[in-house]
Amino acid sequence: MSTHNTERERLVIIGGDATGMSAASQARRLKGPDELEIVAFERGHFTSYSACGIPYWVGGQVAERDELIARTPEEHRARDIDLRTRTEVTEIDVPGRRVRSRELDGGAESWTSYDKLVIATGARPVRPDLPGIDAPGVHGVQTLDDGQALLDTLRATEGRHAVVVGAGYIGVEMAEALIHRGYEVTVVNRGAEPMSTLDADMGRLVHEAMTGMGITMVDDAEVTKILTGGDGRARAVATEDAEYPADVVVLGIGVRPETSLARDAGLPLGAHGGLLTDRAMRVRGHDDIWSGGDCVEVLDLVSGSERHIALGTHANKHGQVIGSNVGGDYATFPGVVGTAVSKVCDLEIARTGLREKDARRAGLQYVTVTIESTSRAGYYPGAALMTVKMLAERRTGRLLGVQIVGREGAAKRVDVAAVALTAGMTVEQMTALDLGYAPPFSPVWDPVLVAARKAVAAVRKG
Amino acid sequence: MSTHNTERERLVIIGGDATGMSAASQARRLKGPDELEIVAFERGHFTSYSACGIPYWVGGQVAERDELIARTPEEHRARDIDLRTRTEVTEIDVPGRRVRSRELDGGAESWTSYDKLVIATGARPVRPDLPGIDAPGVHGVQTLDDGQALLDTLRATEGRHAVVVGAGYIGVEMAEALIHRGYEVTVVNRGAEPMSTLDADMGRLVHEAMTGMGITMVDDAEVTKILTGGDGRARAVATEDAEYPADVVVLGIGVRPETSLARDAGLPLGAHGGLLTDRAMRVRGHDDIWSGGDCVEVLDLVSGSERHIALGTHANKHGQVIGSNVGGDYATFPGVVGTAVSKVCDLEIARTGLREKDARRAGLQYVTVTIESTSRAGYYPGAALMTVKMLAERRTGRLLGVQIVGREGAAKRVDVAAVALTAGMTVEQMTALDLGYAPPFSPVWDPVLVAARKAVAAVRKG
Repeated sequence: MSTHNTERERLVIIGGDATGMSAASQARRLKGPDELEIVAFERGHFTSYSACGIPYWVGGQVAERDELIARTPEEHRARDIDLRTRTEVTEIDVPGRRVRSRELDGGAESWTSYDKLVIATGARPVRPDLPGIDAPGVHGVQTLDDGQALLDTLRATEGRHAVVVGAGYIGVEMAEALIHRGYEVTVVNRGAEPMSTLDADMGRLVHEAMTGMGITMVDDAEVTKILTGGDGRARAVATEDAEYPADVVVLGIGVRPETSLARDAGLPLGAHGGLLTDRAMRVRGHDDIWSGGDCVEVLDLVSGSERHIALGTHANKHGQVIGSNVGGDYATFPGVVGTAVSKVCDLEIARTGLREKDARRAGLQYVTVTIESTSRAGYYPGAALMTVKMLAERRTGRLLGVQIVGREGAAKRVDVAAVALTAGMTVEQMTALDLGYAPPFSPVWDPVLVAARKAVAAVRKG
Repeated sequence: MSTHNTERERLVIIGGDATGMSAASQARRLKGPDELEIVAFERGHFTSYSACGIPYWVGGQVAERDELIARTPEEHRARDIDLRTRTEVTEIDVPGRRVRSRELDGGAESWTSYDKLVIATGARPVRPDLPGIDAPGVHGVQTLDDGQALLDTLRATEGRHAVVVGAGYIGVEMAEALIHRGYEVTVVNRGAEPMSTLDADMGRLVHEAMTGMGITMVDDAEVTKILTGGDGRARAVATEDAEYPADVVVLGIGVRPETSLARDAGLPLGAHGGLLTDRAMRVRGHDDIWSGGDCVEVLDLVSGSERHIALGTHANKHGQVIGSNVGGDYATFPGVVGTAVSKVCDLEIARTGLREKDARRAGLQYVTVTIESTSRAGYYPGAALMTVKMLAERRTGRLLGVQIVGREGAAKRVDVAAVALTAGMTVEQMTALDLGYAPPFSPVWDPVLVAARKAVAAVRKG
């Protein structure tokens, strides 16, 4: 299979998850095996799975690991994709148009040449170099294998105390999962408030709600070491000020682009360590190399600068665009506005666009407003409070960002702002938006419109 | 109070519900009583109430009538608005800049002059001229008084059978209310499917779901009379083909603009019988007369023509715009895209933009696609199926409309399409929208994006 057939092109894909396999599937839809050979290398056992679903599998809402797998290696192979699992790519030879790979179980190494290459190596979790970090009972939650190992620990121990390190979306989702498993949960967080993807005033609301759920929130705290017991297992997490007992420790500190192969190959990386691409998702300066998903930087359409965002929905879109272009069609990924939604138990958290510090960094002057409203008409059963914060550019009134913290019906309201940001709308234009209204679904002024009206007044004053 | 004080302007408002009192409140915010006198006439007992909430009050989800009242007459009066309830305006003298009013309880008539006039007379329900239509037990549900009368009937009778005439949003919401009250419900509908605000293929899904709830759906049926019993009360509804027993009959046939005063005064009406205004909500050709809410026609931004839409959210926006302009500020209402959401028990129904017949009438050629997807990631508990139909313009790919029928989490997804329509986006642009993704909230491709992707393919073929 590694002999290069000159009668057809060969597409080589590094990474068998969302971007890589979406690209493979879309390319295969456009070109049959007579025209295009597709070889995909995947280091792990699994393909095309939902890493975002791991917290719900650990928490027990999703019963079986396989429910998170959208397409198995066998299903990909049945569609004429030469998928090689447990095989790691160790080098990209750009001038030679080939990659070197190693079978993880057998150890055999070989070179595979390519006409077109897709780098979809994803992200790696941040794992600080602390004493005890590698002790049994300390878990990341990046891959299905990680999730399985954590579940094995939870089932094997008679634990009561869990410590989650990090209070971003992985951290808060894992806090929920561990509550579902019956643990007393402590979240240790380096920042002043959880969810640093929000401004601190909105993060404060998350803090209060999580405390109300019985979670111990430790903010402004740096973990100094993981303490182990006589059996070598983790038994507590230490900060400069205190120790927190831990039968299990979950690391949810964040991820970085996995671009060591690309860096070694001399490919262009950005300030966040991600590959830089054009809008067709081609690696800049390389007409026959594409990249997408968690290993690239994306254009933030609001600030005009590059960001790194590890999120399955972007990875899938990138794969679709890459597969279309590789397959001879044409598609582009214009960029993101930075939308993210998550939840902790019944608390919904959403954001899109710029936070205050993002706006300042981008040199944008802005006004902010914060309002409280309800998910349904106030008199309708189940109407739940939500807080909406809105940023608008000074003078122009252009929408810059929205953050929402609330209960049922809060998070997906951010989508309205995401579309408005994409369209470059002003908050004044937003006040006239024809959003769906009926008492079970919204107050007569949707909360996003209430915020927009208040933002209009702030822009006029500002 | 009817003497005209020449030192300040007088604003006269006809109609004390959403548009009229929003306009009054906003004008009062901008101008105090020394500058602007505000006189408002309201025929009924109540002001500023949610007519959209009546089905939920009748159904019992809202316990008390007063929960539907946003602001009472006394509250308006406390803000220096001279509100005259139970007082009907019987004539507008445009050249004389005055209105004639009659106190409904006392019978006294008088003229009140104005500098600025707001016509907010709302809509009246269609009430076909059928034998038995005025019999006890036959109810409309337009006003709080109507709702109270219906509730009185429901409490006084030991009824089992209810017939709802009409299967638009009022009809289906009343069907739900009567199910909640323990009735066996029959919906008699002139059209081929319920919810004629949807295309028939999507209406069919509503039909099937309502049948599944135990509601008897009678389509393609014209009511010929209401049969009465020996006590003179309604006992059945007759069509050409059959009779349906009815201890109570609810009329939900629709509404027309209430513009008889305006027509008699020579003000410009459109093809749907609504007043025609400019974007500042001034009646065309009249610099000192404004109108909004259920008695005006609005510009449909997608088709470019005028429509009549009776919906509280528009009425409130119109009132806000009118009040701003009357108060010396500046605001406009650019138009609508035709968004509407409603529900029957757990079935959610949404639409925005054009149906197929609207597009044909507007001379627009289009492609349509219909997809099924889920409200959450497929593996996440509570993921509910929804059907999304999308219309896009042939050649240009511009989004023309979206219809959604599903369960929890379906209806408000239409807001994304409403903003995209307002921004004039193509379906190809929509495929890149950065919508909120996390397994509890959405599949990795949001259902609206799944539809957009399929629409892109249809546009390329079409």
